[in-house]
Amino acid sequence: MSIKVKSPKDSFTVMNELVLPNDTNTLNNLMGGRLLHWMDIAAAISAQKHCNRIVVTASVDNVSFQQPIKLGDVITIEAKVTRAFNTSVEVRLDVWAENIPSGSRAKSNEAYYTFVAVDQSGRTIPVPELKPETQEEKELFAGALRRRQLRLILGGKMQPNDAKELKALFFPE
Amino acid sequence: MSIKVKSPKDSFTVMNELVLPNDTNTLNNLMGGRLLHWMDIAAAISAQKHCNRIVVTASVDNVSFQQPIKLGDVITIEAKVTRAFNTSVEVRLDVWAENIPSGSRAKSNEAYYTFVAVDQSGRTIPVPELKPETQEEKELFAGALRRRQLRLILGGKMQPNDAKELKALFFPE
Amino acid sequence: MSIKVKSPKDSFTVMNELVLPNDTNTLNNLMGGRLLHWMDIAAAISAQKHCNRIVVTASVDNVSFQQPIKLGDVITIEAKVTRAFNTSVEVRLDVWAENIPSGSRAKSNEAYYTFVAVDQSGRTIPVPELKPETQEEKELFAGALRRRQLRLILGGKMQPNDAKELKALFFPE
Amino acid sequence: MSIKVKSPKDSFTVMNELVLPNDTNTLNNLMGGRLLHWMDIAAAISAQKHCNRIVVTASVDNVSFQQPIKLGDVITIEAKVTRAFNTSVEVRLDVWAENIPSGSRAKSNEAYYTFVAVDQSGRTIPVPELKPETQEEKELFAGALRRRQLRLILGGKMQPNDAKELKALFFPE
Amino acid sequence: MSIKVKSPKDSFTVMNELVLPNDTNTLNNLMGGRLLHWMDIAAAISAQKHCNRIVVTASVDNVSFQQPIKLGDVITIEAKVTRAFNTSVEVRLDVWAENIPSGSRAKSNEAYYTFVAVDQSGRTIPVPELKPETQEEKELFAGALRRRQLRLILGGKMQPNDAKELKALFFPE
Amino acid sequence: MSIKVKSPKDSFTVMNELVLPNDTNTLNNLMGGRLLHWMDIAAAISAQKHCNRIVVTASVDNVSFQQPIKLGDVITIEAKVTRAFNTSVEVRLDVWAENIPSGSRAKSNEAYYTFVAVDQSGRTIPVPELKPETQEEKELFAGALRRRQLRLILGGKMQPNDAKELKALFFPE
Repeated sequence: MSIKVKSPKDSFTVMNELVLPNDTNTLNNLMGGRLLHWMDIAAAISAQKHCNRIVVTASVDNVSFQQPIKLGDVITIEAKVTRAFNTSVEVRLDVWAENIPSGSRAKSNEAYYTFVAVDQSGRTIPVPELKPETQEEKELFAGALRRRQLRLILGGKMQPNDAKELKALFFPE
Repeated sequence: MSIKVKSPKDSFTVMNELVLPNDTNTLNNLMGGRLLHWMDIAAAISAQKHCNRIVVTASVDNVSFQQPIKLGDVITIEAKVTRAFNTSVEVRLDVWAENIPSGSRAKSNEAYYTFVAVDQSGRTIPVPELKPETQEEKELFAGALRRRQLRLILGGKMQPNDAKELKALFFPE
Repeated sequence: MSIKVKSPKDSFTVMNELVLPNDTNTLNNLMGGRLLHWMDIAAAISAQKHCNRIVVTASVDNVSFQQPIKLGDVITIEAKVTRAFNTSVEVRLDVWAENIPSGSRAKSNEAYYTFVAVDQSGRTIPVPELKPETQEEKELFAGALRRRQLRLILGGKMQPNDAKELKALFFPE
Repeated sequence: MSIKVKSPKDSFTVMNELVLPNDTNTLNNLMGGRLLHWMDIAAAISAQKHCNRIVVTASVDNVSFQQPIKLGDVITIEAKVTRAFNTSVEVRLDVWAENIPSGSRAKSNEAYYTFVAVDQSGRTIPVPELKPETQEEKELFAGALRRRQLRLILGGKMQPNDAKELKALFFPE
Repeated sequence: MSIKVKSPKDSFTVMNELVLPNDTNTLNNLMGGRLLHWMDIAAAISAQKHCNRIVVTASVDNVSFQQPIKLGDVITIEAKVTRAFNTSVEVRLDVWAENIPSGSRAKSNEAYYTFVAVDQSGRTIPVPELKPETQEEKELFAGALRRRQLRLILGGKMQPNDAKELKALFFPE
Repeated sequence: MSIKVKSPKDSFTVMNELVLPNDTNTLNNLMGGRLLHWMDIAAAISAQKHCNRIVVTASVDNVSFQQPIKLGDVITIEAKVTRAFNTSVEVRLDVWAENIPSGSRAKSNEAYYTFVAVDQSGRTIPVPELKPETQEEKELFAGALRRRQLRLILGGKMQPNDAKELKALFFPE
């Protein structure tokens, strides 16, 4: 398969899950780790749709859980690729929880996972480019660079002062 | 919450699953029962969105699996309510399997599950009406009656000769 | 292994399962999809005993769940092959739920699953014949033909008017 | 429900399981702990049929696994109560593994689990008597006393010299 | 139980897990989400030992996975509380993977999870103080403040220029 | 890899698990079989650390469960090799359950599992020697011989009167 240009909607993925007893603590709240697991699967499916390759989770950015999700709630996870780098992609996730009797639906969190594409021997391999189309997609595409700088700094692979975009955003002169 | 009229798109549900080793037999094919389980969860989520109630699976219609689904494939299940009866709804499911490296996507099966809505004591309870809008939704709505007659006959709760719609369809004079 | 003739009792299989929290909804009722999954495993074991081959689920017939099964109940599933066709078999399932404190046991449902036997490359392969012995086995053997016609009609692979046995049963002149 | 006398066949339980990938190590052998888990469920179902009560595992005797069980094999576990004490029962298990393509079936192990019956508050509660009928059932019934002495000695609750039946069996004068 | 001062070693927790088939992708690599799930359980156990309360995951910081972990590897997760805030604690995780045949052991990642302590009604509740003792514990304690500022900025709850400690670290004058 | 001498601390393994709903019966007590499963995984990890080989469970000795373990408790399992025979090792397990709100911790049980080391073809293979160091390790090492005699007698592979060490312990002259 040839490397080509793809749009974010090519990798758009929706996952619904029902919160079952084993997913919850003794207060009937969904455990964060279970949700991170579902998010990883949804994000990996999205990344694989973009890359047409098996992908391996490289990192997950800061995730904050806004409010407790309860036993019996329906989780909706939406994922799409925001930017492709050489051999990796960043995937944005939006997570909601819906309470069935009331029909109310609340945002749980937003997150970014990155994945590396690999061939059958597990070696990294180039991925298709991503071309953002809508205004929102363009902003996510631009932000991906700053998030990458933050990941590199936190991973000890970049000096903060080399992260120009990040510095300009965080601490504008 | 008051009983009101809903449209099929109110209950539209998408579920993506990744086929993992424990979901397959020793030939690396997805086991049918595992897929029926996922379909039940997707259909139950859809029925609950329509009813705003906990629902209990009442029946599943004939399901035929077209072709083997393999380890690592991505399953997409789409579900929506086709018709509401007094205390029950019929949900239609469309299932696809996507092979990641090739990007090819094949229809696996179509199915109908029915659910009964219950209150906290487990008693059946009336559900909102469904009003079909598109041409396809109207055909699914009409077909729901024939499928219900077939279910009742197969369950020994209706005499075949009373199933006028079904007879007219199967064996037109 | 040579193709030979087998009797229904050669494939007779019993499976007991305990209904655990993750198998139930928030009303503590067993979810239908979980039961369909167990039934598929029991039926596949039965089909494999008949075929001495790996089998793949081809279809499941209409299944109606009579009454709720509760958390802590013991499920008993009995499966046996009713008829062998060229490369496939039909398996009948009888499912009961037993409440432990009261010792009461209720029929939950009856169902028919069909399986195709495959070789190591996944190609269909002929299966041993089935020779029914008891009166009940002979009736199940005869009914298998009508159920097959219904499956073919519902799957769009047979015209209703060609299904003579089914028509005679449903709408006798 | 009144306490009455039951026979071993009242508690006879059969469980079939299919060995799936997650049940095996990287050599595709069933892990011993997974089998001990299935055996506990089968034995608990058997004990509950005898007691009509929720039961709690009190102990498991020495279990030796004869030979490796492979991925894709069908496990058959047979369980029945051998003897009832005041508030507990001993359950004997016989476990076989069947290889599907060859149809060969090998004994994997025999084991004894003991269970205590409890009421809704978790307090121990008397159980029905067991009356053995066949010659084999009578021998299992007699042996249950010696196995109990061995359990008490190994648990530090009995002095070896007080275990007359066990001593006579192990070290006849 | 009264609120008192605890040391990091009071909450020290070790978890070993074996990587099974269902935890891996089709290249036999451990999926990142599964590891995040195990890490959440280990961290929650550690936080609960410190708080003697049920805890709820509030956030997870950036996590980078250094290298693929393979099927059959043994995962070791070490967790301990680094700092207590009013009603929350930060837990640091160190994760290694060990290859059995070679006996080689590699660091997989380091991570920080934060948890909120709640009472039986789910309301947040004060937690015991943490008093670091060793030099390493004191550094983790100090760093917890900067990591908290980064979390608040990324969550949109703090202006970057108010995060003095973080700014001084990232972009020293 | 050369066969060498190892000490018990080389195989020391700690596993923490959280008791989740699916691990419990309807009285919220941990099921014995689930604990036996976790213990087998912990013991296998320990045996593999000693052998640097894949190991297969050969047997489990009598295990008595002292008291119920509840939903939400934290299980701690400690495992270490007590003695190596030609191609097998004995592993001792100590199991505790901790109640989070009270912080109380109770011994649940002690157990011995034995494992056989195998090569990639599944053939048994010699294992490194074990050299006990502390007084406790030396006692466990000595006791391993008696426990082995008991296993062989119970498995019908040794005559009781040939088990000199066992007899001397049980019935001193």
